[in-house]
Amino acid sequence: MVKKFMLAFGIMALLFPTLAFAADDATVPQLQSAIDAVWVMLAAILVIFMQAGFALLEAGSTRMKNAGHVAGKTILTFGLCAIAFWAVGFGFAFGDGNAFFGETGFFVSGLEDQAKAAFGSLSFSDVPIGIKFLFQLAFAGVSLAIAWGGFAERAKLPVYFIFGILFTVVIYPIVAHWVWGGGWLSKLGMQDFAGSTVVHLQGATAALVATILLKPRIGKYNKDKTPNLIPGHNQVLSVLGVIILWIGWFGFNPGSTLSAMGDGFFGYIALTTNMAAAAGGVAALIISWMYFGKADIPSMLNGVLAALVAITAACAFVDTWAAIVIGAVAGIVTFFTAQWFEKAGIDDPIYAFSVHGIAGIWGTLSTGLFATPELSAKVGVGGAGLFYGGGLHQLGVQALGVFGALAFVLVLSFIILGIMKATVGLRVTEEEEIIGLDLSEHGSYGYPEQMKKAAQSSNNVTV
Amino acid sequence: MVKKFMLAFGIMALLFPTLAFAADDATVPQLQSAIDAVWVMLAAILVIFMQAGFALLEAGSTRMKNAGHVAGKTILTFGLCAIAFWAVGFGFAFGDGNAFFGETGFFVSGLEDQAKAAFGSLSFSDVPIGIKFLFQLAFAGVSLAIAWGGFAERAKLPVYFIFGILFTVVIYPIVAHWVWGGGWLSKLGMQDFAGSTVVHLQGATAALVATILLKPRIGKYNKDKTPNLIPGHNQVLSVLGVIILWIGWFGFNPGSTLSAMGDGFFGYIALTTNMAAAAGGVAALIISWMYFGKADIPSMLNGVLAALVAITAACAFVDTWAAIVIGAVAGIVTFFTAQWFEKAGIDDPIYAFSVHGIAGIWGTLSTGLFATPELSAKVGVGGAGLFYGGGLHQLGVQALGVFGALAFVLVLSFIILGIMKATVGLRVTEEEEIIGLDLSEHGSYGYPEQMKKAAQSSNNVTV
Amino acid sequence: MVKKFMLAFGIMALLFPTLAFAADDATVPQLQSAIDAVWVMLAAILVIFMQAGFALLEAGSTRMKNAGHVAGKTILTFGLCAIAFWAVGFGFAFGDGNAFFGETGFFVSGLEDQAKAAFGSLSFSDVPIGIKFLFQLAFAGVSLAIAWGGFAERAKLPVYFIFGILFTVVIYPIVAHWVWGGGWLSKLGMQDFAGSTVVHLQGATAALVATILLKPRIGKYNKDKTPNLIPGHNQVLSVLGVIILWIGWFGFNPGSTLSAMGDGFFGYIALTTNMAAAAGGVAALIISWMYFGKADIPSMLNGVLAALVAITAACAFVDTWAAIVIGAVAGIVTFFTAQWFEKAGIDDPIYAFSVHGIAGIWGTLSTGLFATPELSAKVGVGGAGLFYGGGLHQLGVQALGVFGALAFVLVLSFIILGIMKATVGLRVTEEEEIIGLDLSEHGSYGYPEQMKKAAQSSNNVTV
Repeated sequence: MVKKFMLAFGIMALLFPTLAFAADDATVPQLQSAIDAVWVMLAAILVIFMQAGFALLEAGSTRMKNAGHVAGKTILTFGLCAIAFWAVGFGFAFGDGNAFFGETGFFVSGLEDQAKAAFGSLSFSDVPIGIKFLFQLAFAGVSLAIAWGGFAERAKLPVYFIFGILFTVVIYPIVAHWVWGGGWLSKLGMQDFAGSTVVHLQGATAALVATILLKPRIGKYNKDKTPNLIPGHNQVLSVLGVIILWIGWFGFNPGSTLSAMGDGFFGYIALTTNMAAAAGGVAALIISWMYFGKADIPSMLNGVLAALVAITAACAFVDTWAAIVIGAVAGIVTFFTAQWFEKAGIDDPIYAFSVHGIAGIWGTLSTGLFATPELSAKVGVGGAGLFYGGGLHQLGVQALGVFGALAFVLVLSFIILGIMKATVGLRVTEEEEIIGLDLSEHGSYGYPEQMKKAAQSSNNVTV
Repeated sequence: MVKKFMLAFGIMALLFPTLAFAADDATVPQLQSAIDAVWVMLAAILVIFMQAGFALLEAGSTRMKNAGHVAGKTILTFGLCAIAFWAVGFGFAFGDGNAFFGETGFFVSGLEDQAKAAFGSLSFSDVPIGIKFLFQLAFAGVSLAIAWGGFAERAKLPVYFIFGILFTVVIYPIVAHWVWGGGWLSKLGMQDFAGSTVVHLQGATAALVATILLKPRIGKYNKDKTPNLIPGHNQVLSVLGVIILWIGWFGFNPGSTLSAMGDGFFGYIALTTNMAAAAGGVAALIISWMYFGKADIPSMLNGVLAALVAITAACAFVDTWAAIVIGAVAGIVTFFTAQWFEKAGIDDPIYAFSVHGIAGIWGTLSTGLFATPELSAKVGVGGAGLFYGGGLHQLGVQALGVFGALAFVLVLSFIILGIMKATVGLRVTEEEEIIGLDLSEHGSYGYPEQMKKAAQSSNNVTV
Repeated sequence: MVKKFMLAFGIMALLFPTLAFAADDATVPQLQSAIDAVWVMLAAILVIFMQAGFALLEAGSTRMKNAGHVAGKTILTFGLCAIAFWAVGFGFAFGDGNAFFGETGFFVSGLEDQAKAAFGSLSFSDVPIGIKFLFQLAFAGVSLAIAWGGFAERAKLPVYFIFGILFTVVIYPIVAHWVWGGGWLSKLGMQDFAGSTVVHLQGATAALVATILLKPRIGKYNKDKTPNLIPGHNQVLSVLGVIILWIGWFGFNPGSTLSAMGDGFFGYIALTTNMAAAAGGVAALIISWMYFGKADIPSMLNGVLAALVAITAACAFVDTWAAIVIGAVAGIVTFFTAQWFEKAGIDDPIYAFSVHGIAGIWGTLSTGLFATPELSAKVGVGGAGLFYGGGLHQLGVQALGVFGALAFVLVLSFIILGIMKATVGLRVTEEEEIIGLDLSEHGSYGYPEQMKKAAQSSNNVTV
């Protein structure tokens, strides 16, 4: 068609070049903005879908008597998070402000001009503010979902209300502002492309505080302090959850370009992300096989997730082979730290701190080792890592960022949860924990037919 | 790259401006059309994926003995719907025609020029007819999936064949033509952006007729007419279903722009949709907590869906705060109407009429209250609502639309299902209902290992 | 906005036509490439998500004692496949090379210029190499997932490691090169748009070899060689799996355009794909109803998949009505061949060879019957089929392609698996098979609470 146009109207086009832009046609910047909007909307949808991944992974990794509660509270907390992040959190994170928090943009208003402001210099056009908000809300929701891992199978429902809102309003957005909102870590050039520290380490640190303050589940430890395995009730649901999370990460990391332009850079990020995940899962399965004598499926699932967490900071800064190394190391390290925490008396039911915390730290530090000068320049944040001639500078910045975020979230979470423990209380009663949180918190089983049969056959009739 | 081009070929470009359009390059309208095509295809995929949401929600909300049947019939009916809508329904809905139905476009042919015709003036470029068909088919499939809620756990399989085809051919497309195909409600300026009335109220009305004609399930009511709770067997599946539906609604509502252009308007619609859903879920959970003394998970799930149903009409016409109000009201109202219908002797197993009917009515009326003049002008349909100085006019149009659709579907469904009841029959036998529809309609359990163990242990061996 | 621009700067624009391209604006080819990148990335995500579909379908179709293993090995094998395809497979398939295999592009490097090379002449712009790799990796992963169907419930875990890597490196990419990488079948004009032969028949042939070499599961056949039904444990999971696969096929087939340009051609392919799936499911359910006297849900699910497999070759070459015929025939034929293989003593637990092999053959041949001259010219591969005046030529090419792929995979699979059987062994011990692969291969049940109760109540306490 273009060719015909050329032949027929060649000379006319030379004289009236704007003919190609008819009255209803868009301008090039409008087209660019529309493409970016579609891409970031897709990414936001994928990241919001990760709530299903967490609900399934966490429900599958816990017991039948708590399954309805564990899955259902995901929807409750994402709902609370959406409203609190809309009203307050988004402004604290992305509003104009000082080095520590934003001061404008509450209720997502007045930030239309800010929509362009992205991590580094990667955003090529304006993403509509509604879509930018949904994308960032999805990240806050993921961080909160990670935190809940530490509360599993023993926290009271009101805790999810109160801590969920406070985490969304005063914890998550502050660190997000530091790194992504123009705050002090941003100015130092910290490389955390999609949030190994901002999203994962933050959520994991809150989970660690919770699991320490809540104390282990009944039956987790024997009198001699050796741990018992409390297996999750449904590995098929856990596997489905992990595949949904893997898929969701194609929004999480590549979507953080906030643009589809840039000669396919988001596709490169999707590639590094995928290769890390593959390496982490395979490495963790092999390690578990060597260590346990059996190829342990939950260990493999944790390996996939740990690798994805680690590559989240590094995805835009490293070569593909480095992504594979980063993912494999994450899978292996997380396997051993999970064992270590369990033996140390910390009952973290779905290994939130190992998978999201340790791997989040490793991933954030890894850019200080593997970041290439070309990719750092492309993103426009920080410089080359140790292995690429950058010396120790970038590694130092990364370590400072990890330390800052970890300390801040640790302190604030201890204060908030400590006050809650002393006042409203964090944990259900022993009796409630034994009958399960489906009954104690919601009044009905998640699996009523199966649980009633179980109760009948064992004569442990409850309620 | 552009900069280099500018430097190197600046003068040449001035002289030969069409150089930028090389032989293989697209024109701006072609680019625009391609962006819109990708966006609407994504939206269509999300809405078709909602069939998984309904299958899981409905299966999770019913009993184990019917689970295979409930999930499996989803695929059957979407298959039938696809063929019937392709051959006939799409033409009745979107073909050129009179005020009541379309008269062209059967077998999706001859409507290529119509692909632009969308709700209001929002469509900025031609969406390929194949994609427009898939998007609209997905809507018809959702409406039909809602209708099946009222048939659950007691209707015979042939009923799904016959009523599924008739609903797709003579019920759904007629009302769709009234509002979206240039029919009489369209001309009156009815504001139903993505189908609170067209999709949800229609399906829910058919469900209501079905549940009345089928009568309650065995064991639902005691002799003194008080209802018994028949809990669904798997809340984890229900939660997964609701998250898939929530995600699907990002196609349902924002996709109804049929375009990614318009300065990110589809992103704004995604924002109002998400905030309403969040508010509806939280509000319903809190109300259930106050009313039952326990935070009821199925009530929260219904609250999310009711809010999504309500915002479906209003999403493009209202402010974000109004979306939150509309969603919260939907969640609360639906909670009480569900209780009321149950007490009134209407056994609607998955609360289809409350969630999709009452909330559909509320959502359609809500634009008559909250529609802003700016957004109404942007969409190009109707005017401001009562709270924005529009007086009672728009509210009256909305009420007329609700009444028209409700009356039409009520009468037609009663006629079709009444004739079917008198001839082929609607309901399985008492014995079949007791052993479950998996065995009676399909010859095998959906959960054979679990059901056989249950049968052995209770000595209720069936089949 | 354009209009204002026209009014205000009309004359200026005439004089300085390049003004519309400001410094930060993209060129038209860049916009085109970005749109295509978003579309192919979406398609790649959908096809990778099909791993969840296969995990659920296969787990749902097997027994509870193997469910964790069946689901979990999906993640392991996709991880292995990703690394092996990145290092070697992609180069063999898509590198520059001879008629039989590619010789460049290992580790996905040096192929940036190749990213344009697609099937036929449909690709209108450069898709970033990272996205093209992910899309093609997803296809290799699907082919491998199909192969595993034949190994279900009795193969040892190391088999999944070894054969998974070899299939990815030396089987799949060779045939992919023949048809899609410029090899000998490509030069003959074989019409296999998205891989009825390349993806499905290959996987299914490996599955057939495996199921023959592994021999039937314990208890599948009686002494008189009559088969017993070993029903899958969870139809709801199977249904969810099939819906995810259906959705995934909207990436599989329309995404194989590798472009969103072309006046919506990818939307047309989505339409034919959807109509075939609908027809296949409905046809198979009706046939099962007539044959068994009951509407069998697993047969319907197989019918949907068989139709999708068949339309995969033909989707871009045939009319919509022909797609319906191809899908319906696939659903019916597969129903009968599944019965036949079962009676013939071949225990193919999830009917992989019928659903993906027989339907793959039928689909590949079907373009030799139904391909229209217009669509063949549009795609730029092959010519019209027998029913459209093309004579027997195209049908002959299709038959040759089927024969070549089938023979190659049959021979190579027999060699590889035969050697493995003679050395490391393919099958778990009888005792391991009876207690289930969750325990034997992984050391823990996928459903620990339910399996322990079952073990207690039957006094078959295992491990």
